Amino acid sequence: MAKVSPRTLSGFMELLPDSQMKMERMMEVLRQSYGVYGFTPLDTPIIESAEVLLAKGGGETEKQIYRFSKGDSDLALRFDLTVPLAKYVAAHYGELTFPFRRYQIGKVYRGERAQRGRFREFYQADIDVIGDGKLDIINEAEIPAIIYSTFTKLGISKFKIKVNNRKLLNGFYTMNGMDSKAGDIMRTVDKLDKIGSEKVRQLLIDDVKMLPCKAENVLDFMAIKGSNAEVIAALERFRGMDATFDTGLDELKTVARYLADFGVPEENFAIDLTIARGLDYYTGTVYETEMTEHPEIGSVCSGGRYDNLAEYYTDKQLPGVGISIGLTRLFYVLGEQGLLSDELITAPCDALVIPMTEDLGYAISAATALRQAGVRTQLYSEKKKFKAKMSYADKLSIPFVVLVGEDEIKEGLLSVKDMASGEQVKLSPVQAAEHIAAAVAERNSGAVIKE
Amino acid sequence: MAKVSPRTLSGFMELLPDSQMKMERMMEVLRQSYGVYGFTPLDTPIIESAEVLLAKGGGETEKQIYRFSKGDSDLALRFDLTVPLAKYVAAHYGELTFPFRRYQIGKVYRGERAQRGRFREFYQADIDVIGDGKLDIINEAEIPAIIYSTFTKLGISKFKIKVNNRKLLNGFYTMNGMDSKAGDIMRTVDKLDKIGSEKVRQLLIDDVKMLPCKAENVLDFMAIKGSNAEVIAALERFRGMDATFDTGLDELKTVARYLADFGVPEENFAIDLTIARGLDYYTGTVYETEMTEHPEIGSVCSGGRYDNLAEYYTDKQLPGVGISIGLTRLFYVLGEQGLLSDELITAPCDALVIPMTEDLGYAISAATALRQAGVRTQLYSEKKKFKAKMSYADKLSIPFVVLVGEDEIKEGLLSVKDMASGEQVKLSPVQAAEHIAAAVAERNSGAVIKE
Repeated sequence: MAKVSPRTLSGFMELLPDSQMKMERMMEVLRQSYGVYGFTPLDTPIIESAEVLLAKGGGETEKQIYRFSKGDSDLALRFDLTVPLAKYVAAHYGELTFPFRRYQIGKVYRGERAQRGRFREFYQADIDVIGDGKLDIINEAEIPAIIYSTFTKLGISKFKIKVNNRKLLNGFYTMNGMDSKAGDIMRTVDKLDKIGSEKVRQLLIDDVKMLPCKAENVLDFMAIKGSNAEVIAALERFRGMDATFDTGLDELKTVARYLADFGVPEENFAIDLTIARGLDYYTGTVYETEMTEHPEIGSVCSGGRYDNLAEYYTDKQLPGVGISIGLTRLFYVLGEQGLLSDELITAPCDALVIPMTEDLGYAISAATALRQAGVRTQLYSEKKKFKAKMSYADKLSIPFVVLVGEDEIKEGLLSVKDMASGEQVKLSPVQAAEHIAAAVAERNSGAVIKE
Repeated sequence: MAKVSPRTLSGFMELLPDSQMKMERMMEVLRQSYGVYGFTPLDTPIIESAEVLLAKGGGETEKQIYRFSKGDSDLALRFDLTVPLAKYVAAHYGELTFPFRRYQIGKVYRGERAQRGRFREFYQADIDVIGDGKLDIINEAEIPAIIYSTFTKLGISKFKIKVNNRKLLNGFYTMNGMDSKAGDIMRTVDKLDKIGSEKVRQLLIDDVKMLPCKAENVLDFMAIKGSNAEVIAALERFRGMDATFDTGLDELKTVARYLADFGVPEENFAIDLTIARGLDYYTGTVYETEMTEHPEIGSVCSGGRYDNLAEYYTDKQLPGVGISIGLTRLFYVLGEQGLLSDELITAPCDALVIPMTEDLGYAISAATALRQAGVRTQLYSEKKKFKAKMSYADKLSIPFVVLVGEDEIKEGLLSVKDMASGEQVKLSPVQAAEHIAAAVAERNSGAVIKE
């Protein structure tokens, strides 16, 4: 029979079992961490009506969208989790209680040009808090705590949550009479990290057509650095010049003020006036998260405050604040950098029961006992030589082998072999389960990411 | 601005938060249960090349497939998890260790005519064991244990795993000279439950064109019932008449023999000679699972042994055995029947911290302490009247409210109110976390499904 080549599409991540186990662990940490902060899990369809999904229309994204017909229906695959959230909240408005806090970890689709580390199908892991009409600033102050807790649990300590406020920026541009150029300025300033302040200054003058003194003003403002207290003190000097600026500064002070109570160490947090996060959508606090020893990765968790989640679907004013982790890309980059821990068990099971007699009754009972005690157990049932059975455990890095021969059956015991140390002990099934479970818990106690 | 109606496509399940929590719990039970049996989690793309996905071609399914182009690519959405598994195993053959045991819980797509309880996007939860060339019968004997353990953990006790063997059936048809009509006979016999034996007899004679005595033979065979021992004894009378039958009988005996060792009570298991599970694919043991008090639901977990998983992709012989749960449909039907337990907590958090002072420092610290102790906690930060705050907890069925006023701050304590009993106690943050965690664990200790 002619065979079809079993290929996976480029731009679609498909992991081998050991890598998949690491990915599952990351997802589990996210589910736990988001859950502890009182977010409820949500799941929305991957396919939506194109009219609904593209209600906002236009933009760079539209070309990348997977759009197709089925029968009379014009359909599209979701390209983020925010539009489906907006649809969900608008559609179920009367059935939800606000503030509505949800997390969603799901696949989204963008038909980008395939290139290394770019994915067309990828997981996003989002949280959002949606208010009905209003949403208190404390929700914005809480976000750094969620980022801190999540990345700490993943095993990362060297990261910085960079925070800014869009009202502060907009107010600053207004007080300098630069409103009309705010977009161009923000796009240019965004290059500071990459090209340095001298080149940005030149671009502001040549391309954005700013007077040199005004370009200087912008650069001076962006250069405000230091501890939270120092940055805030520097910003206080602008107070009274623009109402929006003052509101932004008060918001930023509230975010900074409660940091310690939220459990975020100051060294993992920085006010960074160069952060802007796009142009239209965000209206208050904005966030980026940088792995300090790997700035080349870019922001691993970003988001911000917005005023109108679902304006394309409803007249209701639904402000919110949210952050998103590009999980597939993050996982890929961590793997490339060798930052995924190999210490945690990635085998399909913790114990491989190897029967060495014709009758399998006792070996099967042993496997059943281990499983009932919660030990992930496989019964090796293929008729192979002993060496081949041990080699199976070895290849899969299964931590424990449980040998069941005539002696063990006679004694009602199990021979438990630690495949790492080579140590072998005879134990009752109950003891064996405890022995294996304790060792496995110890080995799995580390974090997914190893800096 | 003109609004787009925020609708969700028909045939696509989108749950409200409390229902979604129940679904998440079911998935978690499946992940745990499959994991304990030594299956590794797998995730494959939802989009595949149409050529790959439709390698087998033809059939009823093809019309239902979501197929579309993007650029030059002819793409399709997966319609089950078996074809992607075949592709995966063929593509990664050299990197996998066999037997390869994987579970996958994922969405699949079938553009069926929309009707109540039918879904176009739905979760399947599959496990498969794939051998390289050979796969021992013990793998088939283990499957009932996995089904038993999974449904028991979900909270169902009144179910029966119905098992048959395709070799036994094929052998029986051969020994009666009915090979050529085997397909038609199986399709007709499949209606026994619905239309009864008299009507099946008539169909066998009129439509399948069997001699009355042969139709009688078939009905007598299908009527063999009783305990495992009784059914096997009845089947033993046919031994020696057909080699395939004898092999099938031996396999069935092996499956029945180790049941107790695998921890499956005989009352949850029945040999049922009327089970056939389709025509071409399965070659050995086949499984269906019936909720005994809800036979109208049909089989909630089905599968069987096959000899050639990936013949469209590779010359390698890859036999396997697997089962599948149609999770979305099962969840829907359980909901309709009122079988989803309302006792487990479905609120987004276990504790709602309600600050009653201007400064939020202490309330935030309290929320942080609870979260660090693993309690799912929300800080209520909207500026509302006390009654509105309590009503929020009430509407979401949040089990505990933690009140933080001047007194609590002065004393360094928290007032913890059990929303169900109304009982209120003053505790230190550490005690509060323990108090809430214990009560929550107790309330969540039940099963997802309540018979």
